[in-house]
Amino acid sequence: MFKVRALNQAAIKEILDMKTVIEKVEEAFVMKEKFQGELFPVVFHEFESGVADMDIESGHIKGADLFGLKLVSCFSENKEKDLPQLIGTVMVFDGNTGVPKGILNGQYIANMGTGAAAAIGAKYLARKSSKTLLMVGTGNQALYQIAATLMVMPNIEKVYLYNPRANERANTFKDEISKRLTEEFLKPYIKNSKLFDEYKEKFDVYFEVVESIEEATKKADIIITAAPSKEAIIKKEWVRPGTHFTCIGADMSGKQEIDESILVDSILFTDDIKQSMTSGEAEKAIKNQLIYKEDYKGEIGAVILDFAKGREQENDITVFDSTGIALQDLIIANYALEMAKEKNIGDLFNL
Amino acid sequence: MFKVRALNQAAIKEILDMKTVIEKVEEAFVMKEKFQGELFPVVFHEFESGVADMDIESGHIKGADLFGLKLVSCFSENKEKDLPQLIGTVMVFDGNTGVPKGILNGQYIANMGTGAAAAIGAKYLARKSSKTLLMVGTGNQALYQIAATLMVMPNIEKVYLYNPRANERANTFKDEISKRLTEEFLKPYIKNSKLFDEYKEKFDVYFEVVESIEEATKKADIIITAAPSKEAIIKKEWVRPGTHFTCIGADMSGKQEIDESILVDSILFTDDIKQSMTSGEAEKAIKNQLIYKEDYKGEIGAVILDFAKGREQENDITVFDSTGIALQDLIIANYALEMAKEKNIGDLFNL
Repeated sequence: MFKVRALNQAAIKEILDMKTVIEKVEEAFVMKEKFQGELFPVVFHEFESGVADMDIESGHIKGADLFGLKLVSCFSENKEKDLPQLIGTVMVFDGNTGVPKGILNGQYIANMGTGAAAAIGAKYLARKSSKTLLMVGTGNQALYQIAATLMVMPNIEKVYLYNPRANERANTFKDEISKRLTEEFLKPYIKNSKLFDEYKEKFDVYFEVVESIEEATKKADIIITAAPSKEAIIKKEWVRPGTHFTCIGADMSGKQEIDESILVDSILFTDDIKQSMTSGEAEKAIKNQLIYKEDYKGEIGAVILDFAKGREQENDITVFDSTGIALQDLIIANYALEMAKEKNIGDLFNL
Repeated sequence: MFKVRALNQAAIKEILDMKTVIEKVEEAFVMKEKFQGELFPVVFHEFESGVADMDIESGHIKGADLFGLKLVSCFSENKEKDLPQLIGTVMVFDGNTGVPKGILNGQYIANMGTGAAAAIGAKYLARKSSKTLLMVGTGNQALYQIAATLMVMPNIEKVYLYNPRANERANTFKDEISKRLTEEFLKPYIKNSKLFDEYKEKFDVYFEVVESIEEATKKADIIITAAPSKEAIIKKEWVRPGTHFTCIGADMSGKQEIDESILVDSILFTDDIKQSMTSGEAEKAIKNQLIYKEDYKGEIGAVILDFAKGREQENDITVFDSTGIALQDLIIANYALEMAKEKNIGDLFNL
């Protein structure tokens, strides 16, 4: 019989802070690059086309002695049932014995991990001097993207907000964001005045809702796209030299956010080349033979480890296609379980 | 937040009885045949060749409103750590909403389900008049195979026990089996004297350890093979007309228990044609082009539903290649969760 720990979203929120999550996701990227982390094939099943589906992503992080899976389902009719459409569950197993260690609600882990991954793209590929950030999409993910990116990019002064579908939502988002950054992302550092002050200052930027994506693109140093779009929102001719893109929204086949021709002349990195080619932002460019597998400069772990050069010149356009890999969730979940054990948080059960 | 139920092995033992498990596994086979049950691709990963591996089997039973997975790992070095080598975990999700329903220790579920599947093969393919059963392999699985088969085959009088590797184990097994059948399989019917008496009588058979597999094969009406063998234990020339085989042991590529030529002239059924061809008892016969996909008369659900004829004549040799499908585990796990809810068994946790 095994003692297994369950962590719900509230428990996980108590434990995770974005600085640590960024460190952990960097570790996952590094381990993947060093063949200490491996993704297993994704199982995808559509219960009803366009209405309900699920996938099981799994993998092994040898470097962290764990393996596991996340199962994410999307039932669009849950809305009417007062249930979340997306439900994620993460399971972590001991990599040396197979003993189950924990089961965790996957939602907050995915939000934090996706934000961290986006920021890591900017940290290693954007110009250090970047002053402006354009956030495309103001849904659930946007807050995490912005928080993490502000934490790693010290010179951002202005964040443009753009919602491709309903700009009144961008306004609502803008009205709340400073408060939410403070409440949700500063709280963990309340006992560490140095970090608290550092991030407080970093979060103190100017937010502006933009009506014209063209104008905003022309002014942005860093552009993060996290919109569930099926066609390009950003055209190539708007993009100025030196821009960095982190693309988050293309999480399954058929999705796209930036013009595929942008990828042709860019320095292109991703978290997993296979996923990027088949279901990521690069899918269309690959299909149309605008770019090939050889056009990836590598996976992001190579830049972190200095195995590959990221940006070469100030004028380069860089792209990080963040498809989202299970190793992110697993390494964060494992950290949460370790902290929960120390702090005696969560429900223990017998299995 | 979801209330999720965890059931460990002791809790599951309190709930399951073999009669119900046989009914549930039959239901799973029937649903698969009616396209109300579907297997997803298996994820298999070897951590270290021959030392440690894991697989994730998953599927959807529309007819039972559930989907889910079982993760089974095998770490051979666990022996020295006082841990089970095989560790199985089953997760069940609501098929209409994706809400997690429960997490269960998979060991007892797999044992019971595998026993039930073997018995279902005999029930629908063996001669009703079968009097002798030969059990090849006396490991962990044998008890469940024998219990379930005796429950569905009313005329068995004698059970031959054969252990291909160490026959002294067959002796130990024989010394204990009557007691174990009574203690582990009759107990659930203690309040139902009709069933109790029925099964008590069915379990009252003569057990005999055999030294010669050839002699035993020549006397057996039903042969169940559950030995982790890599080459044929049973030769074709020993098999008498009318024999039924249920083959359990070939659960991964490279395993085999009966001579592949037996399959050529037999009436062949399985639980999943794809699994049987690639990793089941039929793998070698298929590879050597002794039989083809067309030689399967179908999956076992077709016989249960009377969509296909099983045995046609008393003299036919029938084979049920029981590869073990995740739908078995899922339907049993779901039943266990429902009963546990009624009886207030198990640990509830928040996810």
